[in-house]
Amino acid sequence: MPQLLPRALASQESVFARMSRLAAQHGAVNLGQGFPADAPPAFLLDTARRAVGTADQYSPPAGLPALRDAVGADLGVDGADVVITSGATEALNVLALSLYGPGDEVLMLEPVFDVYLPQARLAGADAVTVPMTLDPERGWFLDPGALRVAVTPRTRALLLNSPYNPTGTVFSAAELTEIVALAREHDLWIISDEVYDELYFGDAPTSLRTLAPERTFTVGSAGKRLEATGWRVGWIACPPGLSGMVAGIRQQGSFCSPTPLQAAVAAALPVARAEGFYAGLRTEYAARMELLAGGLRDLGATVYTPRGTYFLTALHPQWRAETLVAEAGVAVIPGEAFYAQHAAPAGLLRVAFCKSRDDIGRALGRLARAATPKVNVP
Amino acid sequence: MPQLLPRALASQESVFARMSRLAAQHGAVNLGQGFPADAPPAFLLDTARRAVGTADQYSPPAGLPALRDAVGADLGVDGADVVITSGATEALNVLALSLYGPGDEVLMLEPVFDVYLPQARLAGADAVTVPMTLDPERGWFLDPGALRVAVTPRTRALLLNSPYNPTGTVFSAAELTEIVALAREHDLWIISDEVYDELYFGDAPTSLRTLAPERTFTVGSAGKRLEATGWRVGWIACPPGLSGMVAGIRQQGSFCSPTPLQAAVAAALPVARAEGFYAGLRTEYAARMELLAGGLRDLGATVYTPRGTYFLTALHPQWRAETLVAEAGVAVIPGEAFYAQHAAPAGLLRVAFCKSRDDIGRALGRLARAATPKVNVP
Repeated sequence: MPQLLPRALASQESVFARMSRLAAQHGAVNLGQGFPADAPPAFLLDTARRAVGTADQYSPPAGLPALRDAVGADLGVDGADVVITSGATEALNVLALSLYGPGDEVLMLEPVFDVYLPQARLAGADAVTVPMTLDPERGWFLDPGALRVAVTPRTRALLLNSPYNPTGTVFSAAELTEIVALAREHDLWIISDEVYDELYFGDAPTSLRTLAPERTFTVGSAGKRLEATGWRVGWIACPPGLSGMVAGIRQQGSFCSPTPLQAAVAAALPVARAEGFYAGLRTEYAARMELLAGGLRDLGATVYTPRGTYFLTALHPQWRAETLVAEAGVAVIPGEAFYAQHAAPAGLLRVAFCKSRDDIGRALGRLARAATPKVNVP
Repeated sequence: MPQLLPRALASQESVFARMSRLAAQHGAVNLGQGFPADAPPAFLLDTARRAVGTADQYSPPAGLPALRDAVGADLGVDGADVVITSGATEALNVLALSLYGPGDEVLMLEPVFDVYLPQARLAGADAVTVPMTLDPERGWFLDPGALRVAVTPRTRALLLNSPYNPTGTVFSAAELTEIVALAREHDLWIISDEVYDELYFGDAPTSLRTLAPERTFTVGSAGKRLEATGWRVGWIACPPGLSGMVAGIRQQGSFCSPTPLQAAVAAALPVARAEGFYAGLRTEYAARMELLAGGLRDLGATVYTPRGTYFLTALHPQWRAETLVAEAGVAVIPGEAFYAQHAAPAGLLRVAFCKSRDDIGRALGRLARAATPKVNVP
C-alpha cells in the first residue's frame, strides 16, 4: 500500500479532543476542553430554528452578506472587509495559507494554542515561538525584547492571542503599541486571535486592529461569544481591500460556513450587544473563576488569576493531568500541550471555568479527596 | 505593506459563486450553481430544530459518533473508518493534504470540478488532467489508455468523480475495474468523489470502494443527498485503519463540523433510506431533466443526457454563459470553467436541473425570446 504523507502520519488527536475522550471514559468532571456548560442564549436558538428550512443552501464563500455586515457593525469595520469562516480554527488556517509559505517564518508566543504550529507546518512555513515569562509574583508577562530578537529576515507575520488562551493575559495598549512598532519596522503581517474579545475581567481589551488597521487580521468567533462552540461560525476582519483574496483561499477549505447558523448569528449579534449579553457572561464567569481559583488555592495550588478567557492556569507540585483524569476523576489540560520549542513550567495546568458551578464544586471535592492519602487495604 | 502569497493573489472567486452573484445582479433565472430549489425534507428539518439547543458544543474532529455510525451503516463500512467533514469540499481538501505533497502528482479528468486543481496546489502537488472525449454520437467517455499513459513515477493518487459533475457520466463496473487495476499496478491511492451517489437515472453506480477497499477514500455529502448544500456536513470513508490520521489533518482545517447539523443528519440518514427519499428524488429529477433537455433541444442545443448528478451538458453555437446571464436573464456555467490544461469543447455549457419546474420553464422561455432577433428601434 502507498504511504500517507509525513504530515498526515505526524498528525495527532488534539489534546482537547483527547482529554474530553478520557473524561468520558473515566466519568471525570471535564474542566479540560473549552466549551461552556450553559446552553446558547434563547435569542440565538430561536433564530436558528427559524433559519433551518429557509436558509439551507450554499452561501457565498465570504459569508452571508447579512452576517458580514453584522460582524462589521459590531467590530466597527466595513462588512466588505469581513470573511466568514467555519469557526476561528478555519480562520487561522486560511490566514496561514494566505500569509506565509515555504521559506517564511511566523512568530508566535509560548504557551501556544495547539493549532498554531501544525497550521504553520501545513502552510509550509516555520513557526518560531518566544516564551512568555511566568514569574511567581507577577504572573505571566511578555518580554518585548525577546520578541524583537526573534525577528529574522524570513519573518512574515506575528500571531498573537489576547485575551490569551491559556494564560489569561490581556495585553495592554502600551504593550500592543510596542508590538505594532516592531511589525511596522519589519513590515510584518499581524494575525490577532481575539476569539475571547468579550470575555475579560477588567478593562476591555484593546484590539490590535485599532492600532494597525493596515496590517492586522482580526480573528473572531461566534461560538466563543454566544456559547455555541459547535456551530462553526467564525470570522476574519481583514485590512481594507484584502477580503476577496482571503475568501478565495477560504473557499478551497470548506467552501462556505453553515448557512442557517450564519443567518442565526447575523440576527443575534446586534441583540447580544443591545441586551448586554456579554456583560452578563463576564459577571457570571468572574464568579465561577473566583470559585475555582479559591478552591484550587485552598488545595495548595498556585493560581494565576486570568484577565480574560474562561481558563485559568495553575501550578501544583503533585498534580499531573494524566493521573488526575484517571485517579481523581477531573479532566484538565496539561501545560506541556501548549509548549513545543521551550520547556513548560513544571506542574502547569489549564483549568476551564466555563463549566457549571456544580461541576466546579464537584471537581474541587474530588481533588480534595484525591489529595488525602489513601489507606491501602491488602 | 507586505504582500500576500502568490497562492492567495492567484485565488479567485469560484465560478459558481460568481455566476450566482451575476444571476442576482441581472435578475436571472439561476440554472448555474448546483443547489436545489426544494427545501430539505421535513424529517431532516425537524431533527435539526430539536438538535439546536441540545447539541451546540464542539464535537470530536472525526465527527459525532452517531453520525460516523450512521454513515458507516449506510455505506456498508465500519463507522470507525468514517471521518465527518465540513462538506465534501473540506473532505477533498483534507485528502489532498493527507495523500500528496511537493514532488507528487495527482491524476484527474477534465472537465474537472473547480476545487480539485487549487486544492492540489495548496497541498504542494501537481495536478495532471486527462481529458474526457466528447463524441457527437456517443457523448462523454473516457479513453482508459489515455489515463494509463498519464501515470508517471511521481503519480501518487487518482481522483475520480462518478456520477461525474459536469458530464453526468456514471462509470461502469468494467471501467472502474480497469482503473483499479491501474491503481494497483502503480500503487496509487484512489479518491472517489461520490457526492451524487444517490442521484442517478439508470443502474445504481458502482462505488470504487467495493472494488478496491484497501486504497479507496470515498467522499460523500449530506448536503447533496438531503438537499441542504449549506449545512456543511460531508464525510470520508477511509480504508481500514487510516481514519485517525485523516482526522488529525482535518482538525487543523475547521476542527469539527457543525454539531447540531451533524446530529440532524445522523438521525435523518436511516429515515431517508427507509422511506425511499432518494428514489423519490431520482424520479422527480429525471422528470425535470427531461423537461430541460427537451426544451434545450427544441432551441437547437445538442444535449448530452446525464446518467447521474443534477446537471446536464449542452452545446449551442450561439450561446455564451457570460452574455446569457446579462442578455437572456439565464445563468448557466460556462464549460471553460471546468478546463485548465486542455481546451473546452466550443460552446459547452453546464445547466442545472435541481431547480423548480417553473424556473426551468421560465429559463427556456427566456432563451427562446433571446434567440429571436430583436428589431432595433432607433
